[in-house]
Amino acid sequence: MLRKNRLFTPGPTPLHPHVQTALASADVHHRTADFRALYRRVLADLQTFIGTKNETLLLASSGSGAMEASVQNLTQGGDRVLVLSAGKFGERWRDLVRVYGCQTDLVSVPYGETFHVEQIRAALKPDTRAVFLQATESSTGARHDVAAIAALLRGSDTLLVVDAITGLGTTALDVDGWGVDVIIGGSQKALMAPPGVAYLAVSERAWQRMEQVKTPRYYFDLRRERKAAQKGESAFTPAIAIVAALDAALQYLRQVGGGDLAEGRGMLVRNAETCAAMTRAAAQALGMKLFAKSPAAALTAVVAPEGIDSGVVVKGVRDRFGAVLADGQGEMKGQLFRVAHIGYYDYLDTIGVLGAIEQVLASAGAQIEFGAGIAAAQKVYAEQTASIAVAGTK
Amino acid sequence: MLRKNRLFTPGPTPLHPHVQTALASADVHHRTADFRALYRRVLADLQTFIGTKNETLLLASSGSGAMEASVQNLTQGGDRVLVLSAGKFGERWRDLVRVYGCQTDLVSVPYGETFHVEQIRAALKPDTRAVFLQATESSTGARHDVAAIAALLRGSDTLLVVDAITGLGTTALDVDGWGVDVIIGGSQKALMAPPGVAYLAVSERAWQRMEQVKTPRYYFDLRRERKAAQKGESAFTPAIAIVAALDAALQYLRQVGGGDLAEGRGMLVRNAETCAAMTRAAAQALGMKLFAKSPAAALTAVVAPEGIDSGVVVKGVRDRFGAVLADGQGEMKGQLFRVAHIGYYDYLDTIGVLGAIEQVLASAGAQIEFGAGIAAAQKVYAEQTASIAVAGTK
Repeated sequence: MLRKNRLFTPGPTPLHPHVQTALASADVHHRTADFRALYRRVLADLQTFIGTKNETLLLASSGSGAMEASVQNLTQGGDRVLVLSAGKFGERWRDLVRVYGCQTDLVSVPYGETFHVEQIRAALKPDTRAVFLQATESSTGARHDVAAIAALLRGSDTLLVVDAITGLGTTALDVDGWGVDVIIGGSQKALMAPPGVAYLAVSERAWQRMEQVKTPRYYFDLRRERKAAQKGESAFTPAIAIVAALDAALQYLRQVGGGDLAEGRGMLVRNAETCAAMTRAAAQALGMKLFAKSPAAALTAVVAPEGIDSGVVVKGVRDRFGAVLADGQGEMKGQLFRVAHIGYYDYLDTIGVLGAIEQVLASAGAQIEFGAGIAAAQKVYAEQTASIAVAGTK
Repeated sequence: MLRKNRLFTPGPTPLHPHVQTALASADVHHRTADFRALYRRVLADLQTFIGTKNETLLLASSGSGAMEASVQNLTQGGDRVLVLSAGKFGERWRDLVRVYGCQTDLVSVPYGETFHVEQIRAALKPDTRAVFLQATESSTGARHDVAAIAALLRGSDTLLVVDAITGLGTTALDVDGWGVDVIIGGSQKALMAPPGVAYLAVSERAWQRMEQVKTPRYYFDLRRERKAAQKGESAFTPAIAIVAALDAALQYLRQVGGGDLAEGRGMLVRNAETCAAMTRAAAQALGMKLFAKSPAAALTAVVAPEGIDSGVVVKGVRDRFGAVLADGQGEMKGQLFRVAHIGYYDYLDTIGVLGAIEQVLASAGAQIEFGAGIAAAQKVYAEQTASIAVAGTK
């Protein structure tokens, strides 16, 4: 059969058609009034999308660049920091703060798990300058309780830096209410655009901290970007096409929300939750286990059936159906496969990929009944959308 | 949930991404060497795609324009012709030959049925100048036996004109072997492009007939187009972007066929057959009847369950899931819905739309078991692709 290429990876994610058109039309110069208007609009819309009054910035980098920028601008050698690690991206925080010479406290839990608030309370010291964590850990599909962790820091001078690269647009985050000082997103996740731009929102006290920090920085000097952004510009050449793509995605979300971008973001989160609920139900109906104890809506990590390498599932779904799942990362390679729900996915995508997974599992020798996973997903969908009954008789 | 717009209509059909890129890049002039090279390539590739050595032509028109061109160039007032009608498009042939003053014999069967060879044999007269029919009747999903009908005409001077607008790329057609004098296709069907271009292949004896016919014609004068095509041009301004789109689709099919366009067309036909087999199995497992007695792979027409208006199914699938089915046409409106398999569809599309149909039927009060239709489709898919077992154990 023909195979359409479809991404079910937790980034990059499928491009929205308006995003594709924007990318193809982006032959504009960045030091022009037109581009400044676009840049200002994207920065303002990102505030709404993130749900913050804090200033937003764009960087021509991947999300990891914005993670490094946070460490580089907010810490200096010898600072005590706390890193919360529950997977590959937690380990990235750990590696980054070590590179910058921080005195690092680490709360580490096994892949698939999340933190207990008491562990974190015990690890916080009076001189902890900053805490680094993920909102959702893309390598395991786990969601962390950012609200509870933020509550521990209230009244202290400890900054809270949250990698929400797969969390934004898939989970509710009350950035200002909870007191998140830096929140980080990436273009290739909920915002339906290709990789190449990271965005972040920075609190007033984080801006103040930057003035004290002596760590050398140039390209990722957020103060420089802030000054430029206030003039509707970027400090360095921006990734023009991707900025235009973000604008198209944000306009689409505004339209989805009936003219209200915040409502559009809420719908996007609920969309991911429904896709995730369908996928979890299907996986369990097929006799598989979920890997994450507190599963995120961003993605579902499924433990492959006993005796079947998850790489065989990933390869089969890709080679036979053109759909790209993600294998486990690091030590979980071969053990689990990951199905993303971040961004531009709909019901047909979800049912389709669940069907493909059934086919590949059956070919690999799993004892499954065709349609059993999808039947469970169908019931979840029907329950979650029960209000939309379509009446009609001849 | 988010809804992606997806066409499951028997034209227009989904655009291939390379087609979209070609459309967006088509700012070229048509009286240039570059465009002539493109035009010649498309004409030659269409011969391969149709499977004929007859000369091919493009018209800037819908498929109905090419139907009219056939009547206008091959008949004149008073000619006796035979029209075979089994639905809305058969009626279009009837209307066209009447407009041009032909003495019309009509073999008409009810919607959903096909012709008996004996009916046709009885209706053919020694002075029948031409026979007009469809390869597949898009309004009912029926496939006609073109080979058997062509065999009746062998050795006579009667021309055979076949509207294969939804037949090309969905069913095997031995144009030259059977002796089809004119075969007609449209850009918006198997070739994954938007509407606006029709194509046709014309036999040597049809070219000769045109020289005798006195019917006034100008825009659709195929002799004029033939002369222009021999110079790599069109007689009038061509639909440049759609010609470029056809080129992209034909290159894609060549790639699908491992460098062999005829093999790519064969795969496209088998693809439609698999989508159709899955859809038929699902519909029957959900207790519904197929409308066509000799169902085409181009599309499946499904009779809506007793007490449910098919318009409710079509509206529900469109409004709730963004997928566009076709309702019945003419007298069948409200009775059946049609799901297309022509062109750029894959497994995920098919499973996804079957899931959406299950949801809408359940909401409309049909007694169905969630997943039952899809389970049947899964079994059909697994049987048809049994050779592609993916082995793999830890």
